[in-house]
Amino acid sequence: MPTKADILLVRSLGDKKGRAEHGLFMVEGPKLVSEALISTLRVRRVFVAREYAEEFAMACRAGSHSTDSVQGIVEEVSRKDLERMSGLRTPQGVLALVEIPRHAMPAPENLRMRLSLALDDIQDPGNLGTILRTADWFGIGDVFCSPATADCFNSKAVQASMGAVLRVRVHYTALPDLLVRYAGLPVYGALLDGENIYDTDLTPHGIIVVGNEGSGISPAVAAAVTRKLFIPPYANAGCTSESLNVAAATSIICYEFRRP
Amino acid sequence: MPTKADILLVRSLGDKKGRAEHGLFMVEGPKLVSEALISTLRVRRVFVAREYAEEFAMACRAGSHSTDSVQGIVEEVSRKDLERMSGLRTPQGVLALVEIPRHAMPAPENLRMRLSLALDDIQDPGNLGTILRTADWFGIGDVFCSPATADCFNSKAVQASMGAVLRVRVHYTALPDLLVRYAGLPVYGALLDGENIYDTDLTPHGIIVVGNEGSGISPAVAAAVTRKLFIPPYANAGCTSESLNVAAATSIICYEFRRP
Repeated sequence: MPTKADILLVRSLGDKKGRAEHGLFMVEGPKLVSEALISTLRVRRVFVAREYAEEFAMACRAGSHSTDSVQGIVEEVSRKDLERMSGLRTPQGVLALVEIPRHAMPAPENLRMRLSLALDDIQDPGNLGTILRTADWFGIGDVFCSPATADCFNSKAVQASMGAVLRVRVHYTALPDLLVRYAGLPVYGALLDGENIYDTDLTPHGIIVVGNEGSGISPAVAAAVTRKLFIPPYANAGCTSESLNVAAATSIICYEFRRP
Repeated sequence: MPTKADILLVRSLGDKKGRAEHGLFMVEGPKLVSEALISTLRVRRVFVAREYAEEFAMACRAGSHSTDSVQGIVEEVSRKDLERMSGLRTPQGVLALVEIPRHAMPAPENLRMRLSLALDDIQDPGNLGTILRTADWFGIGDVFCSPATADCFNSKAVQASMGAVLRVRVHYTALPDLLVRYAGLPVYGALLDGENIYDTDLTPHGIIVVGNEGSGISPAVAAAVTRKLFIPPYANAGCTSESLNVAAATSIICYEFRRP
């Protein structure tokens, strides 16, 4: 049974401050917790509501590992206690405390042959999670986030990432410095005055920068962009929208970069 | 000053039931309300908090119409009253009541040369709004939604659509019947066992079907799909994600269809 202190600790992880203090974040739901257990991250504790024990065991088996191997860290709790701990409006019966990873910044020579993403002040955790999911799908291992970008260990971002946050290496760092450090790599930026992406020759490596939902890429980061890209609206559309959603635009750009 | 009845009416629009009863939905924020005023939809009333009057007038001027032309329907209210009416966590100072449009179903011969979208039980209003925004960008005029799809006039969907819901014609209708009615048109479906979209020849017209966030396209709708599409993950990725976010996938598919 979780102690009152356990419940308070878990609840504190709903805030960035609490997560930083404990070095932990929450992952919820049978499937995501099962993915956490086979990820490279360290899972500290798992709370399972009795009613979900079977579903969780099935998710673990589907992920080709048994719950036996993690028996020491799995604790059965009442549904009520789990609801008290959960960060979700609809708690999903299983909740894991996972150590926040500290990924080393990749050496410039290692980044040179890869495609990476840089997020300049993405504000919405749902957009951030969706972008990480897209990065995972398209084999982008490193995502660099400006310090003002939403926290990828926020519950909403974790859930929207569908587990990608367990696999993609997310680095919070000042983007202008980063782009100086990796100078020489092509830096692609999604900008309204960019080249038509349908007509652009894209390199298989480089850094793709996308900007804030409202204000786009900040001037200091835009200055380091070497190739501006634009996804044109359909010509016959009479479209008065000014832009696509940032996660939608990022997905299109990654898709185009990965065209065989 | 809004009466107590006004406030109750506006608040009731937070529910689908209230919206159906009054035939109205809410649009919030200077920019979106200004777009509503130049759309083909009928704006019944506009409430503006004093502090936002100037910003709203500017947004209207940017949309090349003055607030004079709509003077009869604009009412100045206190910030407090506006907060009471707002459906948003962070109210944006301007709120319009807009009549829910009843778009006629397009005649089959009109749809024959166009690209349309069909959404099979999209559950999340944010995903729905993002998909409408993408449809608007890529010149897709008609979006057909299964009856169980989220309501596009839900506040979250309206905001995520960034005004696209004012322009795109959304029809709620049983999709299997629809696909019979429009038989002969190519029906593309996003399915995990589909053809690699990079290698597929796409027609400039047809219906693109995307499915529910968890369960995908339902069997009855999948049976009507004539061309299955799949966005492949990047080969070297070792990606264990099972899919992309539905709005991200829809954006990629629309982008590919609109490739010149």
